[in-house]
Amino acid sequence: MNSSRPGGRSARVKAAVHQALLDELVEKPYGRIGIESVAARAGVHKTSVYRRWATLETLFAEVAEELAVREVPVPDTGSLVGDLRTVMRSSVRLFKDPYGAAISRVLVAESDHSPALAEMSQRHWERGVANLRPVFARARARGELGPEPTDERLVEALWAPLYLRRLVNRKPLTYAYVDTVIADVLG
Amino acid sequence: MNSSRPGGRSARVKAAVHQALLDELVEKPYGRIGIESVAARAGVHKTSVYRRWATLETLFAEVAEELAVREVPVPDTGSLVGDLRTVMRSSVRLFKDPYGAAISRVLVAESDHSPALAEMSQRHWERGVANLRPVFARARARGELGPEPTDERLVEALWAPLYLRRLVNRKPLTYAYVDTVIADVLG
Repeated sequence: MNSSRPGGRSARVKAAVHQALLDELVEKPYGRIGIESVAARAGVHKTSVYRRWATLETLFAEVAEELAVREVPVPDTGSLVGDLRTVMRSSVRLFKDPYGAAISRVLVAESDHSPALAEMSQRHWERGVANLRPVFARARARGELGPEPTDERLVEALWAPLYLRRLVNRKPLTYAYVDTVIADVLG
Repeated sequence: MNSSRPGGRSARVKAAVHQALLDELVEKPYGRIGIESVAARAGVHKTSVYRRWATLETLFAEVAEELAVREVPVPDTGSLVGDLRTVMRSSVRLFKDPYGAAISRVLVAESDHSPALAEMSQRHWERGVANLRPVFARARARGELGPEPTDERLVEALWAPLYLRRLVNRKPLTYAYVDTVIADVLG
């Protein structure tokens, strides 16, 4: 209970505030959330929250970043289809997770008006592409894939339909759909 | 100035309120818009707005519906690539239009918490697919396309990358990109 000990009070406040924001995000649109409602939910005085996170955007960016960094490492199953299936299924699970679903929606909702969140959306995307480069490099070395399409184009063609179902047409996001998309894109 | 005449005062109020909401949507996140800010911007007394649109969501749904219905009719250029290029370029223009961009973002942002807007998102999508069926039917009759993939899957594969660039990775949405997507999907 020593407030200066690392992992002590400060870490507990951070964890409580992060969790409170995630719960608020699941329950209501971003526009109806404020630092004060998050503080109340976390059981922390609002001045403690303002001291650490000057704006809701700063807090949201930190929480979104932590969730993104927790992404699974890319597997090496021995085949391109096997590798893609594993990573895309993990994206499906993240979209179905209430917190992951909320983060993806809020990034879309707020990025038009927030340069910081727009930049974060792009950074998340680039990190995802970078993460997948070894998968495509191994597939090319095994002769499963030619030099075209590029890694960038492949990731767009593979992941765009998942985002579409999550965010736009709201159709079922299933593992069977993942397999259909992989088969269509790899031809 | 007879308020009971069709196309008179009532139509002018509607037009002013619709335009005011569109301008608000471009300027700020949905959560910071209210019936009162829309009424003030439209120069209409707030009770006149509340009488006609009980909630912001009702008003937003009406405006989004009007924009969706204004979509261009599907062309018959004589080739599948020609038809798709025309319709997809028109989607790109709609996404780049500040009002179209705002509507697409708000539908994503609010649909998780609004069954009415979720239903509208799905309805817009189905209408888009229905709109394109004649394009695919003509292409199949000309032998440009086999029975697979289905119309539904083709529309997802073609439009998902446009939504992805508009909403998620925020990369440039160009006519050249439309051509790349068409070439990749039609193989």
